[in-house]
Amino acid sequence: MRKLSYGVCAPKGFKANGVHCGIRKNKEKPDLALIVSEVDCSTACVYTQNKVKGAPILVTQKNVADGKARAIICNSGNANTCNADGEEKAFRMCELVEEYTGIKASDVVVASTGVIGQTLDVRPIEKGMRSLVDGLSNRLSRKAAHAIMTTDTQLKEKAYAFKIGDKICRIGGIAKGSGMIHPNMATMLCFITTDVNITPEMLSLALKKAVVTTFNMVSVDGDTSTNDMVTVMASGLAGNDLISEKGPAFNKVVAALNRLMTEMSKAIAKDGEGATKLIECRVYGAKGKVMARKMAKNVVSSSLVKAALFAADANWGRILCAIGYTDGNFDASKIDVDIKSKVGSIPVCKNGAGVEIDETAAHLILGEDEIQIIVNCNQGASKAVAWGCDLTYEYVRINADYRT
Amino acid sequence: MRKLSYGVCAPKGFKANGVHCGIRKNKEKPDLALIVSEVDCSTACVYTQNKVKGAPILVTQKNVADGKARAIICNSGNANTCNADGEEKAFRMCELVEEYTGIKASDVVVASTGVIGQTLDVRPIEKGMRSLVDGLSNRLSRKAAHAIMTTDTQLKEKAYAFKIGDKICRIGGIAKGSGMIHPNMATMLCFITTDVNITPEMLSLALKKAVVTTFNMVSVDGDTSTNDMVTVMASGLAGNDLISEKGPAFNKVVAALNRLMTEMSKAIAKDGEGATKLIECRVYGAKGKVMARKMAKNVVSSSLVKAALFAADANWGRILCAIGYTDGNFDASKIDVDIKSKVGSIPVCKNGAGVEIDETAAHLILGEDEIQIIVNCNQGASKAVAWGCDLTYEYVRINADYRT
Repeated sequence: MRKLSYGVCAPKGFKANGVHCGIRKNKEKPDLALIVSEVDCSTACVYTQNKVKGAPILVTQKNVADGKARAIICNSGNANTCNADGEEKAFRMCELVEEYTGIKASDVVVASTGVIGQTLDVRPIEKGMRSLVDGLSNRLSRKAAHAIMTTDTQLKEKAYAFKIGDKICRIGGIAKGSGMIHPNMATMLCFITTDVNITPEMLSLALKKAVVTTFNMVSVDGDTSTNDMVTVMASGLAGNDLISEKGPAFNKVVAALNRLMTEMSKAIAKDGEGATKLIECRVYGAKGKVMARKMAKNVVSSSLVKAALFAADANWGRILCAIGYTDGNFDASKIDVDIKSKVGSIPVCKNGAGVEIDETAAHLILGEDEIQIIVNCNQGASKAVAWGCDLTYEYVRINADYRT
Repeated sequence: MRKLSYGVCAPKGFKANGVHCGIRKNKEKPDLALIVSEVDCSTACVYTQNKVKGAPILVTQKNVADGKARAIICNSGNANTCNADGEEKAFRMCELVEEYTGIKASDVVVASTGVIGQTLDVRPIEKGMRSLVDGLSNRLSRKAAHAIMTTDTQLKEKAYAFKIGDKICRIGGIAKGSGMIHPNMATMLCFITTDVNITPEMLSLALKKAVVTTFNMVSVDGDTSTNDMVTVMASGLAGNDLISEKGPAFNKVVAALNRLMTEMSKAIAKDGEGATKLIECRVYGAKGKVMARKMAKNVVSSSLVKAALFAADANWGRILCAIGYTDGNFDASKIDVDIKSKVGSIPVCKNGAGVEIDETAAHLILGEDEIQIIVNCNQGASKAVAWGCDLTYEYVRINADYRT
């Protein structure tokens, strides 16, 4: 797959923009994003499994019930969650899109991200719509990506080209996510566009498949947001034959989603609040896929593993301990663990017990900003990958200060 | 229940001691503890649910399979876990108890706590046994409590008297635990003695009942240790009629265990690594006990709630978010949340939405070192209490430095 520029604007038929409308006080930081399609799009979403759901999610669920949408509007700075008038305000945002673009309110995906439990003032959004819509362009994915950021320090935007038959198809996405990241069947915010021609049903199936091995394998802090959502809109303008069943073309879409969402997952983990390192845990030789996934995720979710890696300390006992949280039967005494980064790789545990470690080499390996923990269970054929980050003073500082 | 002195030595028939034997380099810190009973004891244990179990747990399970024990030996500074020769070494510790006290090795409960995955050197233990055994006394519970501490900053020792019929019974305990605390069906280390006359079966039942609402409701950091264990030994010397079935006398034992283990749970949460505050979450009006417990535990386990409380920030949206992780059906829009400490109490959320908060009052309330989060679900009759602590820079420092 070839990398492209312009994120959500890379696929045919999409424009985007982002502006500062005034939900946030800092005028340098855009806080309102819009993505629109020229045509009706097959649309699929997955949502947070948190029982406390943001009002925008409830409105979006209704709007995409027919598998169609044409626009995404998203503000940052306020999650519009746990507010008595939340749904009303979220629907008002959809109406504003209709007023300014002609796209029906019921074809709008709406999202909000920021502090939970503060009443959303829609007046800044009303005031910002004119310049937001006037500035829409097939180049400004970056502005939309910037507008949805909260504590993120890196803008998250990716796009790729791939082929279905002789047709070139494109997929692009923007995402935000840095804290309250421990997705379960959905995640943070990620808005994906593609020009693939596909039915809403197959698009939804492809998205659900891809999310299992990508966003669901990320953890920054064990907290699952109330407002997580992944949306993919497919304009169909690539001109491929309509994908309406499983088969090679469908698999290409799943692969493209997988690629984009894997890169986004890594970007989100690496930009975890306060993080200095991306931690990738690769589990091999497990007795089943589900067990492999849980093991990998338990390792990257452990506060103690994360704190040890912040100090570049090869405290592999904590890795074994975290593996031990996994449900199901497995034999810990067969497990090998290696640590690896671009400067080298060393075994730290063999058959569930320690091996002589060259601490200097280990410290050097763990001093890098991308670390792999390789777990070989030696008792099956299943594998999985999960991503996380280290736990730092900065994480505490950010989250002790966030609201005040 | 009346408070007593002398912890595990308060009940009739028990002696204890703790010495520095040399597993730890710091000579000021005792690292080997012994508790012995004059007579055979009905003995019950619960263990960590971590799939990676410390070698001492495997040996203890065999030794107490007959429901009897007469001694507990425990070292700190090394967990004797994930070592190829772990079980052998753990059994050697039991043999040493036999050599020096005459109590059969198969009647010894053995425990270790400290770094995982470093070979345990038993030579310091061999050398320390003489002074450990010679110093045994019915006053030195404190020395044993001190010897099992790792990152704990507070010694944890409690004892109470209660009556069964006209007999005065006593219960005492020591515990350690500060990090890697997120027990599941068992917890950290807690050694309990009592002089109640009770069968091993009923003692085990009482312990399992009490652990559900006490140690299983504590979280410091979401990490479950490989070596967690709670042991209770009952000498029977109080002289009450043998308790061999459910009834009022059995209920008194459960109540006594509950009291002791509740106080220990709070002590452990308050002494959580780096903690500045004890957080108690009380859930009322939930649809079922299990749901109430999960809600309470989700709140005290949330990194984001914990970081906000470190900053004395009334970020109640994070509390609702954490409640939302709970499985099962409930209506978030009926939930009320109050925050409370000894200086006052204020509502922060009513019917799932925010209320006007006097931020100065909230900050004052949350500035105290014991905070209550009162959650009223308003949709049932079940309640639960969980304990945790705040997440601080110091937690990161301790765990980034622990092994090095």
